[in-house]
Amino acid sequence: MRVKVLGSAAGGGFPQWNCGCSNCRRLRLGTLRATPRSQAQVAVTCDDQHWFLLGASPDLRYQIEGFQDLHPRGEGRHSPIAGVVLTGGDMDHTLGLLLLREWHRLHVYSTATVQRVLLHTNTIFRLLERMPDQLRWMTPLPGSPFELTAPDGAASGITARLLALPGGMPAYAPPQADNGPGDAVSALILTAPSGKRLAYLPGLPDLSPALLAELQGCHTILVDGTFWSDDELVRMEGFGKMARDIGHLPVSGEGGSLSLLGNLPGVRRIYVHVNNTNPMLDEDSPEHALIREHGWELAFDGMELSL
Amino acid sequence: MRVKVLGSAAGGGFPQWNCGCSNCRRLRLGTLRATPRSQAQVAVTCDDQHWFLLGASPDLRYQIEGFQDLHPRGEGRHSPIAGVVLTGGDMDHTLGLLLLREWHRLHVYSTATVQRVLLHTNTIFRLLERMPDQLRWMTPLPGSPFELTAPDGAASGITARLLALPGGMPAYAPPQADNGPGDAVSALILTAPSGKRLAYLPGLPDLSPALLAELQGCHTILVDGTFWSDDELVRMEGFGKMARDIGHLPVSGEGGSLSLLGNLPGVRRIYVHVNNTNPMLDEDSPEHALIREHGWELAFDGMELSL
Repeated sequence: MRVKVLGSAAGGGFPQWNCGCSNCRRLRLGTLRATPRSQAQVAVTCDDQHWFLLGASPDLRYQIEGFQDLHPRGEGRHSPIAGVVLTGGDMDHTLGLLLLREWHRLHVYSTATVQRVLLHTNTIFRLLERMPDQLRWMTPLPGSPFELTAPDGAASGITARLLALPGGMPAYAPPQADNGPGDAVSALILTAPSGKRLAYLPGLPDLSPALLAELQGCHTILVDGTFWSDDELVRMEGFGKMARDIGHLPVSGEGGSLSLLGNLPGVRRIYVHVNNTNPMLDEDSPEHALIREHGWELAFDGMELSL
Repeated sequence: MRVKVLGSAAGGGFPQWNCGCSNCRRLRLGTLRATPRSQAQVAVTCDDQHWFLLGASPDLRYQIEGFQDLHPRGEGRHSPIAGVVLTGGDMDHTLGLLLLREWHRLHVYSTATVQRVLLHTNTIFRLLERMPDQLRWMTPLPGSPFELTAPDGAASGITARLLALPGGMPAYAPPQADNGPGDAVSALILTAPSGKRLAYLPGLPDLSPALLAELQGCHTILVDGTFWSDDELVRMEGFGKMARDIGHLPVSGEGGSLSLLGNLPGVRRIYVHVNNTNPMLDEDSPEHALIREHGWELAFDGMELSL
């Protein structure tokens, strides 16, 4: 299974359009040792003919154009993109669905809750259903394995599971859409034909013993690296919420992911979905050095893995 | 008044993600004399401190990052983007609003119909209203002049008018939202402090005598150049609708914009919102030569005008 990281930043990307924080300012000035990052987006394939997207980022048009393997082949309408798996309903992970709206058939996998909050409360997603069978929505039960399949009937060879996480509904969801925890945010586990497993967790609100056991069985884990510290946004903005309150376990500190996921022998550990404010983006920073010392990698746009 | 064209293509951009038409294929191969174009986006200012966007394209994150004048100034949160004027509710012109959602105050101008179809039938736009006065929505009456103002109270010096055009509701609008023609699509006329006028018409469904008179009084017109011929999409795709049926007067042919707008002495005429299939994008084509012979220019990303 080929795994391509097309985007490695959190919502807004890096730099972010209206942000003059130290990271964004220095990146624009060219004085920061770091690379620009588009919003989190991963694509996987086993046959190079059918690709499946993990999430659908707002930067998808540029991410597709920048990666030749996702270009149309032949003349007329075509795309090797066969499907999308959604781990949540946040705009950062779903807005890209609207960029895939030119008469292209897609299989979209999500929990029933994510489907409902997108389709039933937002008519713009009707743009994906303008011809029969354009978008086929699949709603596997949390925890149940399902195979990723393409609209042309091709089997991907990839088995997936969406594992319920304790995150809440997206901020735009109407109050009556709240079904409580368990449906709105998921971890995604993919099993390649080789038997090796990939975990994709762009949002990790908390780490249960069951989830830890899952991650111990993985070959590679792509983990929420949004914030370095719990109060990062509040310190930067002077207002706002703690990282944990918006579904992101911080990297550092007691109970942070660096500590909780420190003992996973043989598992390749990569931080993804990194917010523009996170000091570990600066490759000259002590924070960057610390994650490297702990054996972590930092995802970058264009990174490719093989499982 | 400075006028910056940040994007000059129709919806989907050029090249388009799942399109292997002659233009897109040759552009990717590097064998077409043409430049890539992002989705239609114009920005205007009179003081270089407050910019107003005409439409809000899905490519806005890249368009902002690629134009230094729109970068944040100083440290912390900032953007010189003060407002947005919408000429319609189509996703190509409105999706970018969702990219401006990080705690930034904005004035958004549109007809009441466009506001309603966006806000009332799509909860995701609530993301723009997460703090008091974050987004102030202004709904001027069609035909009535209004001054563009910034959330900080600064007057732009620019007077605007939205002129009703006979276009229908966006494709995603629920049936009950249809208020008939007159509210859903507008031409935008801006009057600069110099008294010179700019017309922006990314969608021109038809040309009435009243609209023709308006355009005759303009210094510069940016006009719908979506399709070269009425049956362009049907010929390319083997199905679909005629250009006129989806709100776009074709450039060529009897009753096309090249003919109808041929007699505007002294008016600078520029085609914008050009679809990836339009042969005039090929600078070696007879179609490109023809519009140049008729005194038209073709907008490109980065074009700057002064009025």
